[in-house]
Order: sequence, then structure tokens, then C-alpha cells
Amino acid sequence: MSVADLKTRIASEFGTPAVVIDLDVVDRNIARVQGICDAAGVGNRPHIKTHKIPALAKAQIAAGARGITCQKLGEAEVMAAAGIDDILVSYNLIGAARSGRLAALRRSVDLTVCADNPVTIAAYADAAAQAEATIGVAVECDTGRKRAGVETAREAIELARLISVTPGLEFRGLLFYPTETSWTETQAFFDDVRSGLVPLGLEARLVSTGGSPNLVNVGKLAGATEHRAGTYIFNDRMQVKAGVATLADCALSVFTTVVSRAGPERGILDAGSKTLTADQGGLEGYGLLLEHPEAKIKGFAEEHGFLDLSKCNARPVVGDIVRVIPNHVCVVVNMVDQLIAVRGTDIVDVYQVAARGRLV
Amino acid sequence: MSVADLKTRIASEFGTPAVVIDLDVVDRNIARVQGICDAAGVGNRPHIKTHKIPALAKAQIAAGARGITCQKLGEAEVMAAAGIDDILVSYNLIGAARSGRLAALRRSVDLTVCADNPVTIAAYADAAAQAEATIGVAVECDTGRKRAGVETAREAIELARLISVTPGLEFRGLLFYPTETSWTETQAFFDDVRSGLVPLGLEARLVSTGGSPNLVNVGKLAGATEHRAGTYIFNDRMQVKAGVATLADCALSVFTTVVSRAGPERGILDAGSKTLTADQGGLEGYGLLLEHPEAKIKGFAEEHGFLDLSKCNARPVVGDIVRVIPNHVCVVVNMVDQLIAVRGTDIVDVYQVAARGRLV
Repeated sequence: MSVADLKTRIASEFGTPAVVIDLDVVDRNIARVQGICDAAGVGNRPHIKTHKIPALAKAQIAAGARGITCQKLGEAEVMAAAGIDDILVSYNLIGAARSGRLAALRRSVDLTVCADNPVTIAAYADAAAQAEATIGVAVECDTGRKRAGVETAREAIELARLISVTPGLEFRGLLFYPTETSWTETQAFFDDVRSGLVPLGLEARLVSTGGSPNLVNVGKLAGATEHRAGTYIFNDRMQVKAGVATLADCALSVFTTVVSRAGPERGILDAGSKTLTADQGGLEGYGLLLEHPEAKIKGFAEEHGFLDLSKCNARPVVGDIVRVIPNHVCVVVNMVDQLIAVRGTDIVDVYQVAARGRLV
Repeated sequence: MSVADLKTRIASEFGTPAVVIDLDVVDRNIARVQGICDAAGVGNRPHIKTHKIPALAKAQIAAGARGITCQKLGEAEVMAAAGIDDILVSYNLIGAARSGRLAALRRSVDLTVCADNPVTIAAYADAAAQAEATIGVAVECDTGRKRAGVETAREAIELARLISVTPGLEFRGLLFYPTETSWTETQAFFDDVRSGLVPLGLEARLVSTGGSPNLVNVGKLAGATEHRAGTYIFNDRMQVKAGVATLADCALSVFTTVVSRAGPERGILDAGSKTLTADQGGLEGYGLLLEHPEAKIKGFAEEHGFLDLSKCNARPVVGDIVRVIPNHVCVVVNMVDQLIAVRGTDIVDVYQVAARGRLV
């Protein structure tokens, strides 16, 4: 089948817009990153927030991953129900702990959660008491990204101590997510924490680094035991921009129809902010049209993508189906209930995005 | 129950983040806009893209709406299955027509679709042939918004003629979505089309204007038969900014927990771009914290909302639950599977967002 045939078949079987992943590319991406972790002697714990699909998490584990990372307890619930039993949730799960869902999940599977403050630790202690089981807790550390995480080694040591003396909790280790330029700082931070834990009789058995853009840095933190990357399984324009993927490594594209041409330099796609999302990721435009790379998706209405065609020599006509590589693939998957799986130009499966919509 | 009690109950029953609508406010909003249309002598055809919930569409009809507007055929499928039989889909439905779904739906319900080009009209003709039924088509006209729609009266007349001579199709009328400043232009456009249709023996029985910000202009287009507004049912910061709603008219809020305080001037919410969306709507920040209006949601990770607290006198602490009025409510509803319905501080229902995720 040609790409044109695939477009016709997707249009007739599913309509557009349709979110499509190429499993040949997915397989290559999984193998490549497993190889990077293996070569660095660092465990691979992929972040499933990108795909939210148990079958793909299992493919990552089958290729050598030691477990998975989730960002929401609801994601972990779906993955645990599918039989995955080594789960790290890299989030201050206060909302899930208060709802009783953390305790309920802990009764069926061991998992490691994380904290950067005493309130979260207290919520975990309550959940452990409810579950009548020990909950493993890692301390999230911030070395420059200004997301969550304690900002000093002293605070990390104090939280590790607090976890270790709190009934029902077990100190598991440390989570880092270094910026491009903060690896030296991260090493110093980690070394300080490690030294500070010794007199307490504590040890960070889990030392985790994060991020697909950081795949070039896996193993750089001496003492790291694991890396957690998510986006690499599909990749997107942000990963290409970051230099960790090429267009050929982008497994996901949105098949979308040009539904209006309005003016000679304008076009309209049937994929808007409710499909491609307004998450621009700091890039120019909102996606790359494979068939018309000079076209710019300059903005959105909810169900309209606005094309600026002024720089195109060959312009699409109404009815054309084009493929868009999104800026940020994780948020696109989060919009849809299913991904159409192809290998090259053959449709081979339809995956339900089982962990989508798990807000808590 | 107090607001504090409601927060505690939502946290314990659902966890956070949770998307909550106040039906008392919804009822008021529905009644107010029905009153505006009634007073102007213009039919009310609310756009259900905002809520995607059959029960709320039925409440709008019970209050006097003559039917509903959808943006996706999938939305119309859900509403038709719930028994709603007067549906306008204000979109060039090429993707849905090619998949056979337009024909399938037409077999069970009459509906009006729209077009701004001959390719869409040909796709509708194919669907009509498949369905062995007539499909009603309106012509979308653009008078300044630069979205979809023909830009000249001449084109609108030509498309009306084409629809009228195409087997299986019936010309129904014209769709407008004037900008704040294009009402005079819209009137001239409409008058030109109306005159041009006479010699063809055609008449625009449906003349529709659109938009919640245009609620102040309902009836301004002489000859308009209907108005289609969506956002007004819940309202949001954009509507408040546009001057068509007050904060008291905002029915939807996101209950979210402060999960980290990271630094003295920083805080982190458990609602990020996968809950509140990156759709900023041209406003400052990404939402209004009712409890801390001086706080700014300055950015997102997928599951983190980053708070700038530097302007706050009283700052939230970790564990606090706060309520966020989103910038753009339509895209927030699109992220979630359910809305928790309250009246004041009592939880009264949970609505499934039945038409969410209907890409096609």
C-alpha cells in the first residue's frame, strides 16, 4: 500500500482527524533507548504518561525496562490492572492519597511514590495506615528546573529522615530531573545528600534521572541507578529541536483533512486545539505538515487549524489529507481515546488510550 | 455545608484535580441567554461543544432553545442517540462524510450541515446518496474572523446555487460569525446574498449568527433567524474579559490541590496543561484562583501548574485546595470524562462528558 492508499483507508475506516502511530518506528525507539540505558549501566524506567497504553508499557518492559514511571495514580491503577508490578509515581500524590485511591492501589501492588514536603509525607502515612502496608517514598529534588522538588541537599536529607521515621513509610531514594546545564550542580547535590544520609543509616537505593532530552546524558550522574524518559517512544517536533530525534524517529502523526481554503494564502485543517492542543512548546507554529513543510500552522480554533500557506510553492487543496507531526506528542495522546497503529502503510491495530482522562 | 466542607468532600470522594460545575449558575445562564434571544425575536440554538453532555443540551431545549449546534459529527451522534432531533453541525464535515458516518447518522435523524466549498458539497452529495435521504446544507460565510467561510457574497450565492442543483442536497441558509466590529459588513454581505438568491428562486430560511461574546449583539443582524452561543452555559475568564459575564456567572471551576511550595514565592498545583490546557486565550496567566486572585498561574508542565505567589499577601500552603476559573472552559471540559455537579455547596450529580473524544 502507498501512503496515499493509507490515507484513503484511514479516511474511509475512521474519518479525520485520526491519530496514527507507526509501530515499526515505536519498536526502533524502544530498542534504541533500552540500548542507551544498557550501555550506560543504568536501569530503564520509561514514563508512560506519553502513551498511556498498557500494551506499549509491556513492550518497553519486554525490551528490558525494569519497570515504569507514572505521573498520576490513575495511570498506575490502569497499568497495575494490566499486570505491571514495578511502578514509580513521580508526583506529590496528595489528591490521590486523600481520596483513598492510593491506599486501595497499594493493597494490590507495591509502588514507589514521591514527595518534596512533609504534608505529602503525612498523606502517604495516612494511606499506608489505611492500606495496612508499607509505602515506598522517594524524595524529589530540584536542581534548576523550578518544577517540584526540594532545592537544597539539607532539605532532601531532612525529608529522607522524616520518611524513615514515619510509621508505614520506607525511604527509597532520590528523583532528579536535571536541566541541560545543571548536571554538575546535580552531582554536587546528590553527593551532599549521599554523605548526609550515612550518619542516619540511610541509603538512596533508587537514584533516578529523567527526561527524553536528557537521553544524551544517561549515566552522566555518577551513582544514578535509573533513567525515566517518556516522549522518546513517539518523539515530536520538540525532541527533534532538542537534537535527540530525527523526523524519521517520529512515530506519531495526525492525519487531518484540509477542509477549507478560505483565501489563496490560507487553509484550514480539521484538527484544532481540541486535537493538536495549544501547547506550542516554544516552537514556531503548532506542528509540521510532512507534505508541506513550508506551511505554518499559525493558530487554532477548537476544531480548526489555521494554515499560513504564503511560503508554499505547492499548496494543498480542499480535500487533501495531510500528516502533522505535533510539537508535543504527550498532550496530543491525552486528547484521544484511541491510536490507530500501522506498520509502514498497513493498519495493524487500534489501541485504546486506557489511562487517558485519569485526572487523579 | 460550607465551601471548605465541599472541598473536603470532593477531595475524599473524587480526589483532585476535579472539574466542578454549579447547576444553580448553569440554570441562571441558560435562562438569561434564552431571555436575550426571546427578547430579540431570534431563535436560540446553543452550541454544545462547550459541555458535550446530553442532559445539559436537553435543559437548554427545555428552557426554549429550538435545537442545538454541534461542531463534530461525533457530537451530533451522541446528541441524536439521546433523542435530540434538531441539530446543526457548523462545520465542513469532509472527514465524517468520507467515513460513512454522516450517511449513517442521516438515516436516523434530519440535520443541517455546512459548507464553504464545492469539495465539501460533493462529499455531502455522496453521503446523501449512501443514506438515500436529503441532507440540508447551509453556507458558511466569513465577514472578518478569518476562520472558515466564503469571503464574498458572490461565492455564497454560487455555493447556494450549487447545493440547490446537487441531487440529494437542500439549501437551508447562511451561517455568520461576525467579529465585534464587522456587523455592518455582515449586514451588507447578507443583504447582497439575499438579493442574489431571489432570481435563483432560493431563500435562506436559516440565518444564523454565532458566539457568546456576541450575545450583546443578538438581533443586530436584520433578518437573522437564530443565534448559536456555547460558552455562556459555563462562562470563563475570556467571557468575563469580553464583558458578557461576571465572575458570579462562571459555573465551572477546577478544584486543585497545592502539592508543593518549592520556594517562598512559588507554588505548584496538581492541575497542569493536561487539565487546564495551554489555551491562554490572550489573557494574563492561565486561570484565576478564587481564593488568591493575586496569584498568577504562570505556566504548566503536563500535571503541574506553576504559581507565582510574589504578589500575594496571604499565600496558600501545601495541602490547600483552591478553585481555579479557567481561561477557556470549552477546552477544559474536553480534557475530562466527567463533571461533578453541585448546587451551591451540595454535590448533586456526576455528568459523563458523553461527546468528549469524538474526533471525527
